[in-house]
Amino acid sequence: MTNSHGGPIDDVRMRGFARRETVEAALAWLDAQLHRLPAETVLLRAAAGRVLAEAVTSDLDVPGFDRAMMDGFAVVAANTEGASEYNPLPLQVVGEALPGRAFSGDVQPDQAVRIMTGAPMPHGANAVLPAEWVSAALTLPVAGAVEADAISQCAHHARPDDSIQAVAAVSPYKHVGRRGEDVAAGTVVLQRERVLRPQDLGVLSSVGIVQVCVVRKPRVRLVITGNELLPAGTRPHGCQVADANGPMLTALVERDGGIVDFPGLVPDDRDLILTALQSDADVVIVSGGSSVGQEDFVPALLAQHGELAIHGIAMRPSSPTGMGKLGRRMVFLLPGNPVSCLCAYDFFAGRAIRALGGRSKKWPYRSLLATLARKISSPIGRLDYARVLFQDGQLVPISVGGASVLSSTTRADGFVMVPADSEGFPPGREVEVWLYD
Amino acid sequence: MTNSHGGPIDDVRMRGFARRETVEAALAWLDAQLHRLPAETVLLRAAAGRVLAEAVTSDLDVPGFDRAMMDGFAVVAANTEGASEYNPLPLQVVGEALPGRAFSGDVQPDQAVRIMTGAPMPHGANAVLPAEWVSAALTLPVAGAVEADAISQCAHHARPDDSIQAVAAVSPYKHVGRRGEDVAAGTVVLQRERVLRPQDLGVLSSVGIVQVCVVRKPRVRLVITGNELLPAGTRPHGCQVADANGPMLTALVERDGGIVDFPGLVPDDRDLILTALQSDADVVIVSGGSSVGQEDFVPALLAQHGELAIHGIAMRPSSPTGMGKLGRRMVFLLPGNPVSCLCAYDFFAGRAIRALGGRSKKWPYRSLLATLARKISSPIGRLDYARVLFQDGQLVPISVGGASVLSSTTRADGFVMVPADSEGFPPGREVEVWLYD
Repeated sequence: MTNSHGGPIDDVRMRGFARRETVEAALAWLDAQLHRLPAETVLLRAAAGRVLAEAVTSDLDVPGFDRAMMDGFAVVAANTEGASEYNPLPLQVVGEALPGRAFSGDVQPDQAVRIMTGAPMPHGANAVLPAEWVSAALTLPVAGAVEADAISQCAHHARPDDSIQAVAAVSPYKHVGRRGEDVAAGTVVLQRERVLRPQDLGVLSSVGIVQVCVVRKPRVRLVITGNELLPAGTRPHGCQVADANGPMLTALVERDGGIVDFPGLVPDDRDLILTALQSDADVVIVSGGSSVGQEDFVPALLAQHGELAIHGIAMRPSSPTGMGKLGRRMVFLLPGNPVSCLCAYDFFAGRAIRALGGRSKKWPYRSLLATLARKISSPIGRLDYARVLFQDGQLVPISVGGASVLSSTTRADGFVMVPADSEGFPPGREVEVWLYD
Repeated sequence: MTNSHGGPIDDVRMRGFARRETVEAALAWLDAQLHRLPAETVLLRAAAGRVLAEAVTSDLDVPGFDRAMMDGFAVVAANTEGASEYNPLPLQVVGEALPGRAFSGDVQPDQAVRIMTGAPMPHGANAVLPAEWVSAALTLPVAGAVEADAISQCAHHARPDDSIQAVAAVSPYKHVGRRGEDVAAGTVVLQRERVLRPQDLGVLSSVGIVQVCVVRKPRVRLVITGNELLPAGTRPHGCQVADANGPMLTALVERDGGIVDFPGLVPDDRDLILTALQSDADVVIVSGGSSVGQEDFVPALLAQHGELAIHGIAMRPSSPTGMGKLGRRMVFLLPGNPVSCLCAYDFFAGRAIRALGGRSKKWPYRSLLATLARKISSPIGRLDYARVLFQDGQLVPISVGGASVLSSTTRADGFVMVPADSEGFPPGREVEVWLYD
């Protein structure tokens, strides 16, 4: 700690503690730093949930051909005019068209081509006469099977040169899906910044996309410090505790679309921490153990080697949070207390990771309005993050010892924010609750 | 198709088409088949988003020791009684306690141990005297630095045998986090069927969990058939179309917690399809191309080799959907038309995958109430799945050619359901909309 007593470092530290930034000021600084990361190309099959870096325009029609939308017979519509049960129109079946297997000839007015849903319309034909509008010049094997499956039997049993009789007229393009009806060439199918949904992948595939240009995922270095910490997955013993923040932060970062780089716990040592801060990540998150002495030298390190822009925020928990930059990396100094760590991650680090990755800065939590069963008190001048749970449809604040009780966030259904200019909410007040699930 | 004309198969097919099941009846059959898959063990670091197969009870206290909740001096509370600025109480500093590094001796009434937040309370001490309640028998290097960082300097500058003066009293256990305050041994920390949140991983780590017992993920075989299909990632040409359902279904299954097994497109061939149905998956999803002839022989195959329980459902799109079993596998026959495929997946296959994996059967979509700008019409007797988008805060139904226009689901913000007993909704009606995002 001897190095932490130079002038600039003390200045920084004193500034941080002498004056806590408001949450709004901290967010304003943060938002001014954020920019979308550059694009990268991924294969379509790896694109689910990724964020489009640019709009996608189709350069082809989908479908690329007029196609049958029912099973039946492709015919020349004009030729069916006047056809009815009393005036059946004979047509000669000259072939069949199946999905993926076109009929190669031309259809003349007195001809028909047996056609299946999805098959390309033969040249010359411009409408589909459904199976039930055809009378049995050929024998339908199952009487009364007027629905579409009957035709599948027709298709396989009637030979070319069989005759059918149209007993109804069809208008042009009846039961025909037009070329480009799903996507016309030149159409923007998906906008920039779209978070790709399952059906989006279907549409991209249908327009022949192989590779998708998406926003690169932020790489996030986790620096978890604390001499009292044992690696996650270790049974705590003596005065050591198992690292809770590492597993939690890993899951949070991945939820927000980041890629975690966690080199393992870092001892409370200036040089080792400085080395851990120097990575090729886009974001460095430091979880600082629980001691102020220790939390205090990471801000000093950052101020010395980079920029410590924010240190100390008027909120509870998470007031010791710091933010700054080291080269082009965003650096977040999160309190070691796990509830503070979660809260500060959600307010600041998660916001940055989402924005860098092209996602919405908003919380990935649903919110809804609900009624408080008990009051929440909060001093003026500080934003409070109150864990709550539902009991009998109303919100009950969880009273806990403090920011070290992580189980308060697993017992809670969500949280309520009390703004800095509020003294809290009385029982019966309807408030917005953000749900953890 | 010659094999599809035996008696039992025609019976099945005729039943399917002669009578469409209601959505309710189809869901009732489906739900009766569903059971949670057995448990498997995964490492904590792979457990995010997984579903707990059994409740987790902590067998230890967290923290495992009383600990300081502030930086200051560990003291014997009773001894500080009466201390004030006018009646300072001298205490001898006999050592220090840091997180992970306990003070090994006993604290006597006239003694104090310098202590950092998170450090174990020394034997004999039962309260923490905050730094600002100590007067400077030792010199604080920065005047006015009464907040917690001052103490970090004390801690490093004061040597054992230094004296301090308490200028306030503390009550027993003031600023002490009690052993087990976060989690007491014997407490159920997380219930069975919990979908693990980031903070849950933190709590599991803190109670020393290395491996987590979670519900096994359903394995889902995708059988995508259709001679007209080109593999996803191929540029469509001629009368071939690129497979849209494969990429879409893959993303849907993964969203719902399943593991996709996609051996590649299967030609419209009975033997090849039968082979593809025979897998070690828990669920088989068949997307049947667009021809009825072809869609029709998969139900027949299933009826022949397993059970075709449902074939034909009173809904639009997706009416040709089928469901059944082949051995212990659930089999879903989804229409090849991509909108039908999406809708039938969401109604039936996705529900099964979620339930098998221990998740909620409910849709993973948020819903909200919104006002229709235009009417939605729907015939009595059929459930309709209407794609809608928001315009000026109101819902506008998307008018599309039909179930083949997948881009209707990417232009849409979500969907509205019109129940079978409804003829639709007039403009101005407030309806529930399910959001795709």
